[in-house]
Amino acid sequence: MKSGGEKGFAEWQRHFAELAPGLATYYWADPSFDRAQADYALVWEPEPGALAAMPNLRCIFSSGAGVDHVVHDPAFPKHIPLYRMTPGAAAQRMGEFVCWAVLHLLRDGPRIEAQSREKKWEEFERPSASEMRVGVMGLGALGARAAEMLVALGFQVAGWSRSAKDIAGVESFSGEEGFAPFLARTDILVCLLPSTPATRHILSAPLFAQLPRGAMLVNVARGAHQKMEDVIAALDDGTLSYALIDVFEKEPLPQDSPAWTHPRLVVTPHVASTPNKRERATHVLHLIQEIEAGREPPSRFNPETGY
Amino acid sequence: MKSGGEKGFAEWQRHFAELAPGLATYYWADPSFDRAQADYALVWEPEPGALAAMPNLRCIFSSGAGVDHVVHDPAFPKHIPLYRMTPGAAAQRMGEFVCWAVLHLLRDGPRIEAQSREKKWEEFERPSASEMRVGVMGLGALGARAAEMLVALGFQVAGWSRSAKDIAGVESFSGEEGFAPFLARTDILVCLLPSTPATRHILSAPLFAQLPRGAMLVNVARGAHQKMEDVIAALDDGTLSYALIDVFEKEPLPQDSPAWTHPRLVVTPHVASTPNKRERATHVLHLIQEIEAGREPPSRFNPETGY
Repeated sequence: MKSGGEKGFAEWQRHFAELAPGLATYYWADPSFDRAQADYALVWEPEPGALAAMPNLRCIFSSGAGVDHVVHDPAFPKHIPLYRMTPGAAAQRMGEFVCWAVLHLLRDGPRIEAQSREKKWEEFERPSASEMRVGVMGLGALGARAAEMLVALGFQVAGWSRSAKDIAGVESFSGEEGFAPFLARTDILVCLLPSTPATRHILSAPLFAQLPRGAMLVNVARGAHQKMEDVIAALDDGTLSYALIDVFEKEPLPQDSPAWTHPRLVVTPHVASTPNKRERATHVLHLIQEIEAGREPPSRFNPETGY
Repeated sequence: MKSGGEKGFAEWQRHFAELAPGLATYYWADPSFDRAQADYALVWEPEPGALAAMPNLRCIFSSGAGVDHVVHDPAFPKHIPLYRMTPGAAAQRMGEFVCWAVLHLLRDGPRIEAQSREKKWEEFERPSASEMRVGVMGLGALGARAAEMLVALGFQVAGWSRSAKDIAGVESFSGEEGFAPFLARTDILVCLLPSTPATRHILSAPLFAQLPRGAMLVNVARGAHQKMEDVIAALDDGTLSYALIDVFEKEPLPQDSPAWTHPRLVVTPHVASTPNKRERATHVLHLIQEIEAGREPPSRFNPETGY
C-alpha cells in the first residue's frame, strides 16, 4: 500500500491494525515487501510504474476523492479494477462545506469580515436563499448530497450532469443540450464535476458569459476545472460578483497568485471535504468486504467516462 | 403609523400604497394626522406616550423582531393587542444565518480567512456536523425553523424552551429542570430566546460553566442576553472556544468594545434576520386581514410570559 508517503503510511497502518487486525499492510517502497503478494493497493499519486510492478493486484483504491491523480500514471494497469473513495462521510462533509460556501457568498461573509476588521458597524440587506438559484454541476455522490442539503436550506436548486438524475426538489438538466439553459438560470454555480480531459478549464470565459450577470462561483472539485485568469477577469468586469475557490491547479497556491488578494475571491486551502484517515480506512475495508463477497461496489472507475 | 423615522415611513408608505391601495397611512408626528382616527399602529421604538395618545387603536404591530422595544414605553396601552413581526421570511432568513454561523464556526471560517490574508496555505481537519451537538435556546417561529434546517445539515440538534416542543429530529428539553441537561450536551449553543427581564444576561459565566469545555456560542437574539465581559472571559480561559455575536446591548457596537478585536469572537452587525420592508408590510396586511376576519394570529404578545 502507498499513500501520503512513509509518515502518512504509519497512520494508515495504525487504523487498519485497529479496524482489521488480520490484514497485513506494507509500505510500497519497503525493501522487505514482496510486490507479488499484494492483493490490494491504496494509492494517491502512485510513483509511475509502481502499480504495474505488482502483478497480482485484485483492486486499487484511491485514497482521496477522484481518480485523476491515479490514472495519470502512463503505466497504470487498466485491467485492474480501480475504486473511487466515496465514504458517506466525504459526501456529508462536502455538503456542509458547499452550504457554508454558498451561504457565505449569499450573506456576504467577506464584507462582514472586512467591516469588522475596520470596526465599522453597517447593517445591510442581502437576498434570501429562496430568491437564489443554485446550480450544482456534477451530481455524483458528492454533488447529489450537496444539492439535497441546499434544497433543505431553501435555495432553488438545479443540477447538471451527463445523464439525467432524479433528486427530490432538484431540477435536473443533462447532456450538452441541457448545459446552456442550466447556466442561464444559475445565480450561484457550484462545481463538483469529475476531473477529466473534457472538463479541464470548463470554468472559463465562455461558460461565465452564459451565467446571469453578477453570478457567483464555488469550485470545490479540482483546480484543473478553472482557468484562473478568466475567473479573475470575470470578477473584475462584473460578469461574476464573487468566487469561492478551494482547489487550484498548483497547490499550495503560489505566493504570487493574484487569487490570494482579490477582494471578490475567497481562497480556502483545499479543506472542503477531508474525511479523516480512519473514516477512509473504514470505507476501504467495506469495499474489500463487498468485493470478497462477490459484489460490485458502485464506486468503480469507468475508463470510458473517465470517472 | 410610526417606524424608522420619517424617511423610513416614506418607504413603508410606498409599499402599503402598492400592496393595499385602499389603506390610508400616516406618519405619527404629521400635524395633519388625527390620532383618534388610527385603527392600527406599526411601531419600532415608539415615543413614550405616543401610542397611549391614540384612543381608538385596535391593534399594534411591532415592525421588527421581538416586542421588548415596544413594551418598554411606561405608558404602553396594555389593553390593546400587540403583535410580533413573524413573517415566514424572517424565520427563513434567520435559519439561513444560523446555519451559516454554525458552519462558519464548525469549519473555522476565521482561520481560513486569517490564513488567506497571510497567503498561508495550510490544510486542516475539522469535525463533521454529525459529530456536533447543536442546542437551540428558544423554539419560537425563528428557533424552530433554525433547528429544522440544522437537522437537515446533519447536526445533532436539541432545543430548549419554556414548554416542550415537538420538532422532527430535534430532542426537546424544557423548563427549569431541562436546562442543565440541555447545556451539558451542547457543543454549539444558539440563542434565539425572547428578550424579557428573566432572560437578561442569561448568557453569562454560570451558564457557560454548564456547557462542555470549549463549546461555541452563537447569539442572534438580543444584546441584552449576553454579559459581554463574561463571554470574553470564557473565550480567554477556554470555557468557550468561539463565539459569533450579531446583537449587542449598545448598537452600533462602540469603537472601544473588546469584542471587535477578540480573535475568537466573530462580530456581525445585526444582520441575521432582516426581512425587507416589503416582506414585513405584506405580513402586516396579512395580520390585518386575519384580525378583521375575526381570527386571532398566533403572534400576539402575551404580557404574562413577556413575549
